[in-house]
Amino acid sequence: MSIRIGIYGYGNLGRGVESAIAQNPDMQAVGVFTRRDPKSVKTVTGIPVYSADEAQAFQDKIDVMILCGGSATDLPEQTPYLAQYFNVVDSFDTHAKIPVQLQKVDAAAKGANKTAAISVGWDPGLFSLLRLYGESVLSEGNTYTFWGKGVSQGHSDAVRRVEGVANAKQYTVPVESALCAVRAGENPVLSTRQKHTRECFVVAKEGADKARIEREIKTMPNYFDEYDTTVYFISQEEFDEEHGGLPHGGVVIRSGVTGAEKEHKHCIEYSLKLDSNAEFTASVLVAYARAVYRLHGEGVFGCKTVLDIPPIYLSAASRAETIAKLL
Amino acid sequence: MSIRIGIYGYGNLGRGVESAIAQNPDMQAVGVFTRRDPKSVKTVTGIPVYSADEAQAFQDKIDVMILCGGSATDLPEQTPYLAQYFNVVDSFDTHAKIPVQLQKVDAAAKGANKTAAISVGWDPGLFSLLRLYGESVLSEGNTYTFWGKGVSQGHSDAVRRVEGVANAKQYTVPVESALCAVRAGENPVLSTRQKHTRECFVVAKEGADKARIEREIKTMPNYFDEYDTTVYFISQEEFDEEHGGLPHGGVVIRSGVTGAEKEHKHCIEYSLKLDSNAEFTASVLVAYARAVYRLHGEGVFGCKTVLDIPPIYLSAASRAETIAKLL
Repeated sequence: MSIRIGIYGYGNLGRGVESAIAQNPDMQAVGVFTRRDPKSVKTVTGIPVYSADEAQAFQDKIDVMILCGGSATDLPEQTPYLAQYFNVVDSFDTHAKIPVQLQKVDAAAKGANKTAAISVGWDPGLFSLLRLYGESVLSEGNTYTFWGKGVSQGHSDAVRRVEGVANAKQYTVPVESALCAVRAGENPVLSTRQKHTRECFVVAKEGADKARIEREIKTMPNYFDEYDTTVYFISQEEFDEEHGGLPHGGVVIRSGVTGAEKEHKHCIEYSLKLDSNAEFTASVLVAYARAVYRLHGEGVFGCKTVLDIPPIYLSAASRAETIAKLL
Repeated sequence: MSIRIGIYGYGNLGRGVESAIAQNPDMQAVGVFTRRDPKSVKTVTGIPVYSADEAQAFQDKIDVMILCGGSATDLPEQTPYLAQYFNVVDSFDTHAKIPVQLQKVDAAAKGANKTAAISVGWDPGLFSLLRLYGESVLSEGNTYTFWGKGVSQGHSDAVRRVEGVANAKQYTVPVESALCAVRAGENPVLSTRQKHTRECFVVAKEGADKARIEREIKTMPNYFDEYDTTVYFISQEEFDEEHGGLPHGGVVIRSGVTGAEKEHKHCIEYSLKLDSNAEFTASVLVAYARAVYRLHGEGVFGCKTVLDIPPIYLSAASRAETIAKLL
């Protein structure tokens, strides 16, 4: 019997979840739940679309609900709410607010004997796991996380809000010399500016003052003022051809020492190169939906994170098969 | 109260465990247990040395026994035996025999309400974890493991057994073009020969027939005949200067696709660069000793693997701290 998944929210992430379910034979997508008019939404694989208000009626038809809304306003409300009725997985990624989200979802899930996993994806998510494994096995050392090269949607949005900008995409780029120093075990202390640069590809509206646009971007507080930013003005045609996708990625490096005299250096490096940020995140969500389903079946209730969940629960195969094949 | 660790076996790995314990403030080394005459063994940090026969008397003084013997003959006997008296961790690395070792240790540990973890290290170990995470989150794709550049002790031993060889070190080296093809998402089918080359640095005995030595190495069944091998004859001086260490490492790559048309490629890469194979393995053993100690404290008995153990159990900090800092 396959694991029945509901998709709550249907943007890039929701569509990615739908595709990922189609790649996992032990799962089936029951439907999409949207706050828009269901008739206005067409799904990629033809699964049905329901109003978000109808979700509760699906309690017996869905094993795990995957939440595909945003972290700013959707998930802080939706995940604790839906955890009263469903096993849930979300990709809540506001790092500083994770402990609060965890507490709220845990209370809701425990009260309903449901199982939840929050902050699932790649950062938070796989990168968090790798930070934990790295720090645990090399207890003396330093951990570095670099993001990119990839599109930051938040920064792209910020650039688009500048007057005179018709379209824009912002790439976060790790500084190669910083990466090299970290890999060499030099344990550099790196400022924000020394770790990443920002590249903006901007389509200006006709007649707009490009010098002003560039200045406003580069000095924008929080988003750009602490970084070395390069602004490239390009045509809409070039934009469409070269900057249509949402690639991303990054690297976690743990550098540490061992030995009686701490004479031996070690470097652990984990990197992601992703053509589609949303689809990769969706694939991680789907794997953790499997884990949540299994934990629930074993009577483990409450809210978990990727750090809590035994890796073997992610595998579609049995424990014996997985150990024989992968260990 | 710190976690009290016993070290069973005292070669490179045992010394590595001793050093690693000194790097973890929540742990203390109770002593070394050896089959040699204890008086003949001097420990790095001055911890006491006991006869292996005395181990049983330490049941109440040791929380976890870390086994530091070899996989060929030591661990298949020692781990199931000691699991009757102690929580145990080993680095059993004969991949094909893991299911049998798991079964034997599980029976012994369960019978005594003890907790065990076997096949802990980097392969099997961290690499196994990364294979599992990779295959779970990218369900359509291929997994590749490359080893090196690093010293294979088994192959170095094999070369030393060739007549006329005074000393030798064998490095396993991944083929760069194969790595590049994998990283590019080309999903190549790679033969043994296409994945790794072998480099032997040999000190020949005076008057030995170097051409014969080279031929015997290159055609040695199982060890070298399926590889492209290069043999370098060097002086004992150069050997001592350049080839004294036991560096190792490797890389696990998961390459996969997502999307409605499977149009997006993704590449997950995990690499290790280790100055000391034994010390790094020892550091992993020590982290998992912490996990075993905690699992035992929660009444989870039997034999586990790295795939079974929740990552959070490896952290010296509390769950709340670990989530706040690393998630």
